[in-house]
Amino acid sequence: MSRDAELLKALRAAGEDAISGADLSKKLGISRSLITAGIEQLRSEGYEISASPHLGYRLAGEPDVLHADDLLSRLGDVKVIGRDIQVFQETTSTNDVVEKMARDGVKEGAVVFAESQTRGRGRLGRKWSSPKGKGLWFSVLLRPALQPRELTQITVASAAAVRAAIEMQTGLVAEIKWPNDILLGGRKTAGILVELQAELDRVRYLILGIGVDVNLSAADFPAELRKTATSLSIALGKPVHRASLAAEILRALDHNYSRLRAGEFAAIAEEWEKHCCTLGRQVSIHAGTREIRGRAESLGEEGALLVRTEHGHLERVTGGDVTLEK
Amino acid sequence: MSRDAELLKALRAAGEDAISGADLSKKLGISRSLITAGIEQLRSEGYEISASPHLGYRLAGEPDVLHADDLLSRLGDVKVIGRDIQVFQETTSTNDVVEKMARDGVKEGAVVFAESQTRGRGRLGRKWSSPKGKGLWFSVLLRPALQPRELTQITVASAAAVRAAIEMQTGLVAEIKWPNDILLGGRKTAGILVELQAELDRVRYLILGIGVDVNLSAADFPAELRKTATSLSIALGKPVHRASLAAEILRALDHNYSRLRAGEFAAIAEEWEKHCCTLGRQVSIHAGTREIRGRAESLGEEGALLVRTEHGHLERVTGGDVTLEK
Repeated sequence: MSRDAELLKALRAAGEDAISGADLSKKLGISRSLITAGIEQLRSEGYEISASPHLGYRLAGEPDVLHADDLLSRLGDVKVIGRDIQVFQETTSTNDVVEKMARDGVKEGAVVFAESQTRGRGRLGRKWSSPKGKGLWFSVLLRPALQPRELTQITVASAAAVRAAIEMQTGLVAEIKWPNDILLGGRKTAGILVELQAELDRVRYLILGIGVDVNLSAADFPAELRKTATSLSIALGKPVHRASLAAEILRALDHNYSRLRAGEFAAIAEEWEKHCCTLGRQVSIHAGTREIRGRAESLGEEGALLVRTEHGHLERVTGGDVTLEK
Repeated sequence: MSRDAELLKALRAAGEDAISGADLSKKLGISRSLITAGIEQLRSEGYEISASPHLGYRLAGEPDVLHADDLLSRLGDVKVIGRDIQVFQETTSTNDVVEKMARDGVKEGAVVFAESQTRGRGRLGRKWSSPKGKGLWFSVLLRPALQPRELTQITVASAAAVRAAIEMQTGLVAEIKWPNDILLGGRKTAGILVELQAELDRVRYLILGIGVDVNLSAADFPAELRKTATSLSIALGKPVHRASLAAEILRALDHNYSRLRAGEFAAIAEEWEKHCCTLGRQVSIHAGTREIRGRAESLGEEGALLVRTEHGHLERVTGGDVTLEK
């Protein structure tokens, strides 16, 4: 963790109490003048830090901006995801940045956020609208020891983590629409794009691109999405602090990724099923050139959706566009 | 097809007969002076073209070099694979070149050959030795409408095509070792590396990297491979013309790719099984962190190897390193 991350963490730990420059200096093991410099740096980034001559410093207000140091300070101990965090003000797509990192050999677990994306993308080549400062647009680099065919597991584990983190942070009831959408009251509020580079039987790297519509107003959505999409702030009736949510999501992702690596997919799938709005419903699914209609029965062992067709046959669906029929 | 490709094709069609400049001019629909220029160009590339004052031109000898025009002239009508061909004297890896093309949006079917590769690679990060002028080292760009989990089909179709082309061209009995090695007398003579870029349920592009040890002598192989690898020329006792073989392979690949797109995987798989030395054998397979031992029984519907383990369970293996035990 950087100096500023340590400093923020210490200020946050002190809560409503002030903490003296001397105590901070001792706690962080750095000089008083470096503490003063760190406080100035944090203030310049928008943190309100009050200072009383005899009591010390107190964190009086936090801006709703994303800073790598801040995010690292909130994360605590993670095993893989979030070991390294970068925040860009603007980029084409955080997946592009992470892909470049992947090709340069960067280790798994690196995370890249952007305050806005100029060419954010969703599944199947669709555009993803990423207005500045309104959401969480980020990508995670993974190098899982899985075969390409086992990758639906990653989507399931990621969707379960994002859903749980949203619910934990906001108290809203969030559901999963197979394979990777998070819904609030039937409207999409977050999505996950999985991109991968692989040999036939070895994934070289995989990028989780995650978009969460946090503080978008109705007007922030493209017109064609206004009826089917929503944001956390619309559903909650007040803004949500993005950095807290980001840290919650990264912790949840890291937790599920560890479980996946420990062979605990079944437990993750069970949680997923509990919060999935697709199962038990009549669905129609466009998968490539096929259309499959039937009742979504359960999740298969590799994360596939098992659909009982009108003809009684059980179809194993690993991807595609799902429409819930009734 | 370019002028020189058309010209080569016409000369080749005339066979032992000479064909006059006037006839060539008429056939190709270009002026006599362009024919003369084309003949000079071909001669400068090593083609032996005899000219008799009254009879005309005759193709007396062809160099064992790869030229895009020559390859195109030999290919005839292909649907997808080989619509565009490039030949490099040297490159890091033809897969690298094709990957760049794929990222630039080039259409599927493009093929890149190199006379030598400085960083040729095989499966699972292994080196692939590619000595200058001794083999066929090339890559094919595909954009199949398949999901990542269906990709074993591509390997099966490609291996079947390469095997058949080698047998057709040389008369040697060639076998397939699952998933993608071609053997002559139990020794590896060709391999296929499949690399892909995909979303969870959509392949964006796929690169077939194919290496065929055509005219390597025993000394051309790295020491550690001399007991397990061979070349077509070693097995045949004489050199093999690389351009003819290349055209044969591309035609076979194009044919099988068309069949795959037409939903005829079952027929391809049947041919594959007939020429596979893995089926019916005791095998041990390293797939990721797993080791699977048992009897290779058959090919599953997506190209997976179905292995009956010692415990009687049928395992579905989609990749890995196969050792034939007895």
